[in-house]
Amino acid sequence: MTLDLAAAERALRAKLDGLLRIESVSTDPAYAEDMKLAQAFLLDWLHELGFADAQLLQAGGHAAVFAQRLDAPGRPTVLVYGHYDVQPPDPLALWTSPPFKPTERDGRLYARGASDDKGPLAIALGAIGALVARDGRLPVNLKILLEGEEEVGSRTLGAIAARHAALLAADVVLSADGARWRADLPTVTVATRGNTGFQFSVRTAAKDLHSGRYGGIVPNALHVCAELVASLHDAQGNIAVPGFHDGIEDPSPEERDAARAIPFDEAALFAAIGARPHGEAGHSTLERLWFRPTLDANGMWGGYQGPGSKTVIPCEAHAKLTMRLVPGQDPVAVAAKVAAHLRARCPAHATLEIAETRGGAPAYAVPADHPVLAAMEAVLEEVHGIRPRRVRMGATLPVNAIFRTALGAETLMLSYATADEDFHAPDEHIRLSAFAEGLRAWTSLLDRIAAMTPAEAAGRG
Amino acid sequence: MTLDLAAAERALRAKLDGLLRIESVSTDPAYAEDMKLAQAFLLDWLHELGFADAQLLQAGGHAAVFAQRLDAPGRPTVLVYGHYDVQPPDPLALWTSPPFKPTERDGRLYARGASDDKGPLAIALGAIGALVARDGRLPVNLKILLEGEEEVGSRTLGAIAARHAALLAADVVLSADGARWRADLPTVTVATRGNTGFQFSVRTAAKDLHSGRYGGIVPNALHVCAELVASLHDAQGNIAVPGFHDGIEDPSPEERDAARAIPFDEAALFAAIGARPHGEAGHSTLERLWFRPTLDANGMWGGYQGPGSKTVIPCEAHAKLTMRLVPGQDPVAVAAKVAAHLRARCPAHATLEIAETRGGAPAYAVPADHPVLAAMEAVLEEVHGIRPRRVRMGATLPVNAIFRTALGAETLMLSYATADEDFHAPDEHIRLSAFAEGLRAWTSLLDRIAAMTPAEAAGRG
Repeated sequence: MTLDLAAAERALRAKLDGLLRIESVSTDPAYAEDMKLAQAFLLDWLHELGFADAQLLQAGGHAAVFAQRLDAPGRPTVLVYGHYDVQPPDPLALWTSPPFKPTERDGRLYARGASDDKGPLAIALGAIGALVARDGRLPVNLKILLEGEEEVGSRTLGAIAARHAALLAADVVLSADGARWRADLPTVTVATRGNTGFQFSVRTAAKDLHSGRYGGIVPNALHVCAELVASLHDAQGNIAVPGFHDGIEDPSPEERDAARAIPFDEAALFAAIGARPHGEAGHSTLERLWFRPTLDANGMWGGYQGPGSKTVIPCEAHAKLTMRLVPGQDPVAVAAKVAAHLRARCPAHATLEIAETRGGAPAYAVPADHPVLAAMEAVLEEVHGIRPRRVRMGATLPVNAIFRTALGAETLMLSYATADEDFHAPDEHIRLSAFAEGLRAWTSLLDRIAAMTPAEAAGRG
Repeated sequence: MTLDLAAAERALRAKLDGLLRIESVSTDPAYAEDMKLAQAFLLDWLHELGFADAQLLQAGGHAAVFAQRLDAPGRPTVLVYGHYDVQPPDPLALWTSPPFKPTERDGRLYARGASDDKGPLAIALGAIGALVARDGRLPVNLKILLEGEEEVGSRTLGAIAARHAALLAADVVLSADGARWRADLPTVTVATRGNTGFQFSVRTAAKDLHSGRYGGIVPNALHVCAELVASLHDAQGNIAVPGFHDGIEDPSPEERDAARAIPFDEAALFAAIGARPHGEAGHSTLERLWFRPTLDANGMWGGYQGPGSKTVIPCEAHAKLTMRLVPGQDPVAVAAKVAAHLRARCPAHATLEIAETRGGAPAYAVPADHPVLAAMEAVLEEVHGIRPRRVRMGATLPVNAIFRTALGAETLMLSYATADEDFHAPDEHIRLSAFAEGLRAWTSLLDRIAAMTPAEAAGRG
């Protein structure tokens, strides 16, 4: 038989309509039953696709849905990743149509999760269905892992992957998550930044003090906290923490040249957000976003915030910091260096408390010569008629590093979501054109991987 | 007749008991009727003291109670000041006895307002009653102004004083407000610091931005705000705003020596508040508190303050600043200098908005050679058996400067409250010993002023 992508698109659209109606919000316990509905829906879909052993994998949080068809002895084993949990729909009043009633308008499908990540994962499952319909079996050994906690930081995915490493073992991971950068340019995302962070508190007295009775003779926790936050960067915006950049793997001249060659309307980007460019000298905007780490205060507070004035000398102040990391930086080591900098700068008249750091996630980059990356580029050129650009992502997708650690497998992202589709916001949507394009790309890529040896698919060719 | 201070004490204690039962909280409209009850109570008391014209003066806020007896043609005219409004009693659960049920315990009288300022004003009225009982008239021309808005910043007192300047005209003002510094040392407070302040906001983008998508390429409003707050002081705690100290009238060598000679347990002060000394170099703790201005951030906030972390780059941040001022500093000019410093430091990638400044209050100092000051020192030595020390107050009492501006009269503070009596807090109280001591002091001082010419009493002798 030949590949019937039109039938596959109809089938996946019907399934996606059902999946989008399930309110699978992972962060709020009020939606616990909806999460179970989504799991049951996906198990059923996978059974229909011939995955007889579809099952739930758990490590204390929302279960992940797992299934496998080992149809191709001697061929590569591919793990397909996606996530079925979604962000809360709030603020509801800003949605044009209800978030859990999928609605088509102007060539787009609107619903919470349409773009992140139910639409993209449905495309992957639709492609699998198309291949099964064509051949009665799959061209590769295929495993599927659909996570239920991506929107809450993949809290238990590391434990699930470690506990079920043998079951999940694969030569390569194809991720249906990780939105495409732009609608106007085919791209492959070859790297993501990591992250880490912590909160710290400054204390200068046992209680808030009256500025009339104590002003001029005691320290002010806000002054200390402000000085500490200000000390993190120099006036040019360079991170001033000693050792922060140690070990960074700078991009190759080719990667840097490729970034510089990408057409990019920088003025439009800054106009859209009402901000001026600011950051490290000596790097272009895209270089700063892709190849350089960051250190941001995400919150800071202390003293009186109400109307009018209050003549108080605050005895405590607080700040939250997060860092984005690039390859070569260890999240725990970087957080420790920032903490050490704060301790060294904290004056004797204040005490500094640093809350325990989350482990964070390291940056991730696909090896530049990975055969599946080359195959993906060939597929995108075939589908879109233009050679795709290699781009990076300033954000963090912890799953890529989790799979590398637990399974020893690289992850390549083939998402047909686009970064402008308002995910995490009202009126989330996906372009309808993504379905046909995505089905072509996914089926073609799986066929191309089927032509590789397992070692090639694993990048060890 | 002779002065019967025992009878005067019994009479004032009976009146004070009634006054303390009236819940005259000025800041909360729920107490508006109680404010009127307090006004009626005071008008009635003044009528009993023979002030036939007792009346209310208003300028849009809570009325002040005014009365006068011009019994002594050719003698000085004294304006006695006090305030009948009190702070809210919250938190109620922390009171040992109910705040509006005056209760004696361990030589102290507990009630909201006992120390600030109903007790001290009752002492002044009690002394006036004792003099009337002795002579059938007063030894000076006496005017009384009892304010109803001291606890809300004397909002309309300036307008009342300006509108009724002729009615209020006096050679000197005696204030029953302004607590004594310490219970263990007789003191006269010869100066108070002024204050001013404003709020400012920093904006760096039209909306909060995601640190993955924008981290490293845009400014962070919290970084800018922290840098601005940190720039207000150098590492030693010296105020770093250009021009901030311009015009300051430094204390005379005698004033400085007197401050240094005062026995003062600095270690106990800092131990009580759990803070280390911090402030300008080259000045002792008392010198910093009395002779030097301050600049404090009273609040600062921006970004995410909830649990966990949020990878946001805040687009706005805010800070509230107040300054304590010393003689020679103009509140408006100082606030303008701090604002100019912030504007000069604000980088091009941020916009700075400075909220309109309140006018503030200038510092106030009694002329060192004022005859009434000398008379007060003699009175205190007579009552307490020890020569009193001249001290200053780090806090601000706007009324002193208001009377100087509106009436051209200096204000001397003769309060029998003490700074440790928990005013503005639960279990506010006044020492019972204050009544007898206060009656002796007030009657003696009024008799001594009666022996002056009006010009002497006005400090123009």
